[in-house]
Amino acid sequence: MTSSANQAVQSILHPRSIAVIGASEKTLYGRGIIEYLKYFKFGGNLFPVNPNRDEIMGIKAYRSVKAIPEIADLAIIIVERKYVLNTLKECVESGIKASIIITAGFREADVEGKRLEDQIVAFARENEHRICGPNCAGLANIQDSTVMCLLREEGRELTRGSVGFVSQSGALMMALAGVARDRGIGLSYIVSTGNECDLEVCDFMKYMLEDPGTSIVTAFIEGFKGPAKFKEVADLALLKKKPILLLKVGKTELGKTAASSHTGHLTGSDVVYDGLFQQKAIIRVADTYDLFDFTKVFSYPKRPKGDGVLILTSSGGLGSLTADLCGDIGIKLPKIEGATLDELLGLKGLLTFDSLGNPADIRGQGMKILDKVIPPLMKDDKFSLILICLGFSTVGTGVAQEIVPTIIDLAKTSEKPIFVLWVGRRSNQGLGDRESGFDLLQKSGVPVFEKPTTCLRAIKALMNWTRFHGEWKEGSTISLPDLEISRQKVRGILEMNSGKLDEHDSKRMIAAYGIPITREGVATSMKEAKSIAEEIGYPVALKVVSEQISHKTESGGIALNILNGNELETAYQEILERAKKYNLTANIKGVLVQEMIKDGTEVILGISRDPQFGPVIMFGIGGIFVELFKDVSFRVPPISRFDAIEMIQEIKGYQVLLGMRGKKKADIESIIEIIMKLSNMALDLRDNLVELDINPLAVFEEGRGAKALDALAVMKSSI
Amino acid sequence: MTSSANQAVQSILHPRSIAVIGASEKTLYGRGIIEYLKYFKFGGNLFPVNPNRDEIMGIKAYRSVKAIPEIADLAIIIVERKYVLNTLKECVESGIKASIIITAGFREADVEGKRLEDQIVAFARENEHRICGPNCAGLANIQDSTVMCLLREEGRELTRGSVGFVSQSGALMMALAGVARDRGIGLSYIVSTGNECDLEVCDFMKYMLEDPGTSIVTAFIEGFKGPAKFKEVADLALLKKKPILLLKVGKTELGKTAASSHTGHLTGSDVVYDGLFQQKAIIRVADTYDLFDFTKVFSYPKRPKGDGVLILTSSGGLGSLTADLCGDIGIKLPKIEGATLDELLGLKGLLTFDSLGNPADIRGQGMKILDKVIPPLMKDDKFSLILICLGFSTVGTGVAQEIVPTIIDLAKTSEKPIFVLWVGRRSNQGLGDRESGFDLLQKSGVPVFEKPTTCLRAIKALMNWTRFHGEWKEGSTISLPDLEISRQKVRGILEMNSGKLDEHDSKRMIAAYGIPITREGVATSMKEAKSIAEEIGYPVALKVVSEQISHKTESGGIALNILNGNELETAYQEILERAKKYNLTANIKGVLVQEMIKDGTEVILGISRDPQFGPVIMFGIGGIFVELFKDVSFRVPPISRFDAIEMIQEIKGYQVLLGMRGKKKADIESIIEIIMKLSNMALDLRDNLVELDINPLAVFEEGRGAKALDALAVMKSSI
Repeated sequence: MTSSANQAVQSILHPRSIAVIGASEKTLYGRGIIEYLKYFKFGGNLFPVNPNRDEIMGIKAYRSVKAIPEIADLAIIIVERKYVLNTLKECVESGIKASIIITAGFREADVEGKRLEDQIVAFARENEHRICGPNCAGLANIQDSTVMCLLREEGRELTRGSVGFVSQSGALMMALAGVARDRGIGLSYIVSTGNECDLEVCDFMKYMLEDPGTSIVTAFIEGFKGPAKFKEVADLALLKKKPILLLKVGKTELGKTAASSHTGHLTGSDVVYDGLFQQKAIIRVADTYDLFDFTKVFSYPKRPKGDGVLILTSSGGLGSLTADLCGDIGIKLPKIEGATLDELLGLKGLLTFDSLGNPADIRGQGMKILDKVIPPLMKDDKFSLILICLGFSTVGTGVAQEIVPTIIDLAKTSEKPIFVLWVGRRSNQGLGDRESGFDLLQKSGVPVFEKPTTCLRAIKALMNWTRFHGEWKEGSTISLPDLEISRQKVRGILEMNSGKLDEHDSKRMIAAYGIPITREGVATSMKEAKSIAEEIGYPVALKVVSEQISHKTESGGIALNILNGNELETAYQEILERAKKYNLTANIKGVLVQEMIKDGTEVILGISRDPQFGPVIMFGIGGIFVELFKDVSFRVPPISRFDAIEMIQEIKGYQVLLGMRGKKKADIESIIEIIMKLSNMALDLRDNLVELDINPLAVFEEGRGAKALDALAVMKSSI
Repeated sequence: MTSSANQAVQSILHPRSIAVIGASEKTLYGRGIIEYLKYFKFGGNLFPVNPNRDEIMGIKAYRSVKAIPEIADLAIIIVERKYVLNTLKECVESGIKASIIITAGFREADVEGKRLEDQIVAFARENEHRICGPNCAGLANIQDSTVMCLLREEGRELTRGSVGFVSQSGALMMALAGVARDRGIGLSYIVSTGNECDLEVCDFMKYMLEDPGTSIVTAFIEGFKGPAKFKEVADLALLKKKPILLLKVGKTELGKTAASSHTGHLTGSDVVYDGLFQQKAIIRVADTYDLFDFTKVFSYPKRPKGDGVLILTSSGGLGSLTADLCGDIGIKLPKIEGATLDELLGLKGLLTFDSLGNPADIRGQGMKILDKVIPPLMKDDKFSLILICLGFSTVGTGVAQEIVPTIIDLAKTSEKPIFVLWVGRRSNQGLGDRESGFDLLQKSGVPVFEKPTTCLRAIKALMNWTRFHGEWKEGSTISLPDLEISRQKVRGILEMNSGKLDEHDSKRMIAAYGIPITREGVATSMKEAKSIAEEIGYPVALKVVSEQISHKTESGGIALNILNGNELETAYQEILERAKKYNLTANIKGVLVQEMIKDGTEVILGISRDPQFGPVIMFGIGGIFVELFKDVSFRVPPISRFDAIEMIQEIKGYQVLLGMRGKKKADIESIIEIIMKLSNMALDLRDNLVELDINPLAVFEEGRGAKALDALAVMKSSI
C-alpha cells in the first residue's frame, strides 16, 4: 500500500494529464482550477469535463470522463457530492488511478456525508484508486508551476524553492502559502489533504522527504490519522537529514475538542507526541507566525558547528534585551577574548573595550565596517553563528542602505550562518518606492526577523537539531536482543496468573527482562515468612499479596522496617487482620517479605499503551513531580541509549538526580539501562503487555545501581 | 524634589521657547534638532546657539546662551562633552531651569566621562537645574508636534494619539516609535532618558500618568534607578486606572550583565519586580514585537466585562489552532447555547449546528453576514469579547473586501470589544495599490493581529488587568494598625539578643505580631524540660538552642516524637552530647521543648531585604518546590488581602493547598492573615529587621489554622 501511495502522490503532484471533472465557468473551483492551470501554462494535456459543454474557457471540453481520448494521470473532482461516487466509477473505468476530490459535504458535514464517504473509500480501495480529499482545497506543485488550487492573490507569481508544505486545513494551506511568500520562503509543493479518506498527510510528507527538490517539510496538523505512519516519516526524516517543522494542534483539551469537531481525527495524547518529536528531532512551532520564521533558519544552507552565538548590535538597549532573552531560551553567548578581541580593538572606527562584550555594541559606526568586524569573528571557533541586531527603521536611509549589501555579501561568503534581527519600522508608507532593507535581505536569502523571541527560539531550534544530528548515528539503529529466555520466564509466571499481576509476579516479570528488583519472597505461613526474612536478612518489609487489594498502604497491608523475628510475628498477624477487615472477600495469596530499602532517589518508570502509538515508555521522578507538575518524559520504543539519556535529562526534576538536599548524585547509568530494557520488553511482549508501572524504582548513588521497590503489570492471559 | 521634577518635565515636554546649544548644519543632532522643530512648525521661540554664527538654517542664531533676549523654557545641549558643564553654567546664569543633554561620552564611556557627569550632577543639583540625559536621543511631544529628536523616516507624518512611550535606550525610542507607527498606534510623547543623571524614566511616566492626553504608558527599561519611585508610579497608575506596559530587561543573568554594562543601572532582583508588577497590575511584555501589539488591545476604549471569549473563524483549522492556544494561555471559551444558538441557527447562510461551537466555524459565508451573526452574541452575557479569526490573504479580493467595512462598523457600535486575528499574506507586492484589509482595520482602530500567540496573550493580559481593576478597590488602601505593644515585646526580646535570634526568640518575635507559633519553652535543665513537656503535653520535640548551631538536624540537635518522661531524659542528654561534639565552642543556651506537630502542609514565608525595594515578603510551598522550581511569589508591603490571595494562588504548587494525595484542603485563610501580619511587621520594624524565615509554617486543614514550627530572624541590635 505504501509504495502505491507513493506512486499515487507522484501522479497527483506531477500529473502529465489532468481531467477536471465538474469544470465550469460558473463555480468557484470549477472555473478556478482551469484558470490557474492555464495561467501557469500547464504543459500536459488538460481535459475539462462537463456534461453540457464542448468548450470551457477556450479549452475543448468532454461530456464525460470516458469521452477523454487518453488515460489521464489524475482526475480533479469538483462535482456535487451525490455525483462523486459515480464520477469515481467512470474514472476507474477509464483507467485513471488517482484523484483529488475537492467536493465538500462528507464526513465533516453530516450523517449522509459520512455514508457517502464510506462508499467512496470502499469503492476506491476495491479498485486500487487513490484519493486526496475529499473536502480539500487542492494542491500545487510550485516547482513545476502545476497549480491545482485557488492561489488567488497569493500566487500570480510563485516563489519557488525547496520547502514543502502539507496542511490538513485547506484554508490554512492557502493563507500560509501567502505568509511563506511574505517571508521570502520558496516552496516546492503545497498540499491540502482535507478529510484524508485515503491519502493522508504522512503520505505527502514521505514523498517530499524522498523528493530531491524538497529539503524541508513543513505541516499544519490537527491530528495524525495514522501515527505509526508518522513514526515512519519521522525515521525517514532522520535518515535523510531533512528537518520537519510542525504546527500541531492538540496541546490542550480545548484544542482537542475543536480539532475533533473539525476533521474527526482523534488527536493523540500530546505528551507522547512531544516525546516522539524530541526523539526524532522534529521541530514543533507555536503558531502560524513562527512556522515560517523557523523555516527561515532551516532554509539557510549553513549549519552552526557549535552552540556559541555572537551578537553584534547597533543599540545597547536592543543588545541587552536580546541577551536577556538568550539567557531565558538557553543560548550561549561566549565572550570575545584573546586574539579575536585584539584584532577587533585594532579596527579603526570600533569603540572601546567595554562595548565589545557579547552582545558587542558596535553602534552605527561599527555596522558601517561590518566587512572588517566579521572576519575575525569567523575565525574564532567559539562562535558558530553571528546574529546582527539592528535597531532602526528598515526603510531608513543612511546606515541601513550602507550595511545591507555588506551583510548580503558576508552571508554569502562566510562559513558560518549570519542572521539578522531587525527591530524598526517596516512599512514604507509615505516614503514612495524606497525599498525596505528587511525585504532586500530576505530576497537575498539572509534569514531576517522582526520578533526577537521568535528569532532566538528559531536559532535555538536550529542548534538543537544540528547537535542532535551530530550526535545521533544512523548506524545506531536498535536491534532487539534474543529474548526467548525472558519470554519463557514470563510464560511461567502467566501460567498461574491472568490480567493484573500481583506485586511479586510483576517484579518477577521485569526481572525476567533484566531489571533489578528487591530480594523478596511470598510467604503463606508465619514460619515461611521468618525463614525468608532470615535468608534476606533483617530489616525487612512485609506487604499483603492480594489482587483485590491494590492500595496496600490504605488497607494497612504494609509493615516497614521490621528488625527481628518478634516484630515480624506481630506485624504478620496485624497485616492479615487489617487486610481482611479492609476487604472481607479478598483472596489473600500470602505476605510478601522484602528486603528493606531506605535510601535512594525514587523514580517512576512505566509502559503504557497509547491509543495511537501502541506501547510508550514513561519516565519521571517520584512524588509531586509527577502528580502536580506532570514532569514526565515519553518515548516510543525502540529507545536508543541517546534517547534514554535525553529522556532523563529533559525532565525538570533532573537536578534531583544530580544530587541536592545533601544527596549524592544518583546512578543515572542504571536508569538508562533500565529504560532500554523496558523498551526491549515492550517490543518483545507487544500487545500482551497492557500496562506496567514501576513505582518506585529506588536509584542509589552513582555506581550502586537501582532496584524496583514496587511494580504492577497488567497482562493478557497468555503470550 | 518630585513636584519640581514634574515642573521640569512639563518644561521639557511643552517648552514655549527652546535654546539649541550647539546648533550647526554640520553635525547630526546640531542640524537635526533645528530641522525637525522647523519641519513640524514649532510654535514657540527657537534660539540656535553657536559661537561662530549669526544665522543657522534660516533662523537667527546667538553667539552664546546669554545673548538670547528672553529666558528660554528649555535648553537642548549638543556641544562636546568638555563644554557641557560650562554650557550648563551659562544656562543657569540665563535663568534656564531645564535642559536635555544629548551629548554622549559620560558615565557610559569612561572614567573621565563619569567624572564630568558627576560634576554636572553636582552643579545642577546645587542650582536647581533639571536635566534629561546626558547620552540621550532627545524626545518629542507628538501631541503638539514639538519634535526634539531625529525621527528621520519615522515621523514625516506623526501618528498622534494617547500612548506615551519612555525608553532608556535612545536607539530603541526611535526604532519603536517606527514600530508603533507601523501598528497604527497613536503616540502622545516619546522620550529617551539616556544616563538619567537627574530625571529618570519614572519622572516621565509619572507625568504621563497625570497627563489627561495620555491614557497608556509604555516603557523600555533596562533597570530602574529608583525603585521606590517606580512603586509610586505603579500606585499612581492604579489610582488613575491607566495601564502601564513594560518591556523590561533583566529576566536572566545574561541580560543583567549586558544591561549593567550598558547604562550602569543595577537591575534589581527580577522576581521581586514580577511580584510588584502583579501587585500593581502592570503588564510586562516579552519583546519589542509584543509591546505594541499588547498596546493595541489596551488602546481600544472598550473593556471586557467578564472572562468569556467567543471565537468566530473563517477556517476550521485556524479555529482549532486558536482554541488550542486559548487552552494553553487560560482563555475561557464558553459554548454557544440556548437562545443565542437558536437565533444563530435561524440565520440564513449560516452552517449547521456542529460548526457553531466555540470556536464557531462560520466560514466565508458566515463572515459575509457578520452584521447578523454578531448582534445575538453581543446580547449574551457569557461572551465579553469577540475574536474574529480570518485565514486568507489580507490583500485579497472578495470576502476580505466585503467584511472589513462590516467589522469596522460593528467594532464602533458594539458594546463589547471586537478584535481580529488575521493570518495570511500581508504584503501587496505585485498587486498594485490594492490596500490591505489588515491596514484598513488598523487605521480604523480595530485591534488586529497577525501572530496568534501574541494576540491571545494580549487578550489574556487585558482580561487580567480589567478583572484586577474590578476587584481592586481604591478605598482598600492599607493603614498600619497601632503596633506599639508588638514593638515593646520585640524590644524586650532584643534586650537579651542582637543579630541572629535563636529559634525560640525568633518565634516570640513573630508571635508579638500575632503570628501563631508552637507551644514551647526553653529548658536549661532536665527538670525544667520535663516540667515544660508536662505543661505542653506529650508528645514533644526537643531542639538544641544555640546561636552557633543553625543546622539543628545536621548537628543531631533534634529529637522528635518524645512520648514520655523517660524518653525525654534520654533524648535530652543525647542532644546535648551530640551538640557539644558537633561544635565544641558553641554556646548552648538550653533545649527547646516544643509541642510535636505532625500533620499540616508545610509552607515557607519570609521577609527579606531587596537591595532596591527594601523589605519584600516571600511565600512558597516547602521542600523541592522552593529549592528546585523556585516556585515562590513576592510582594512589596503594604500587602492587601487581595494581594495576599493572589500571592498564594499564583504559585504552581497552589494545588497542594487545595488538597491532594489524600490531604484535605489547607487553611488558606490563615496564610492570608499571616502574610498580612508579616507585611505589618516588615513596615513596623523597617530596617531593623534584616531578614526573617518562617520555615516551615504548618498549615492545618481548613478552619484549623496554622503554626510556625521553626523561624529564624536577623535583627539590628535595637529598635
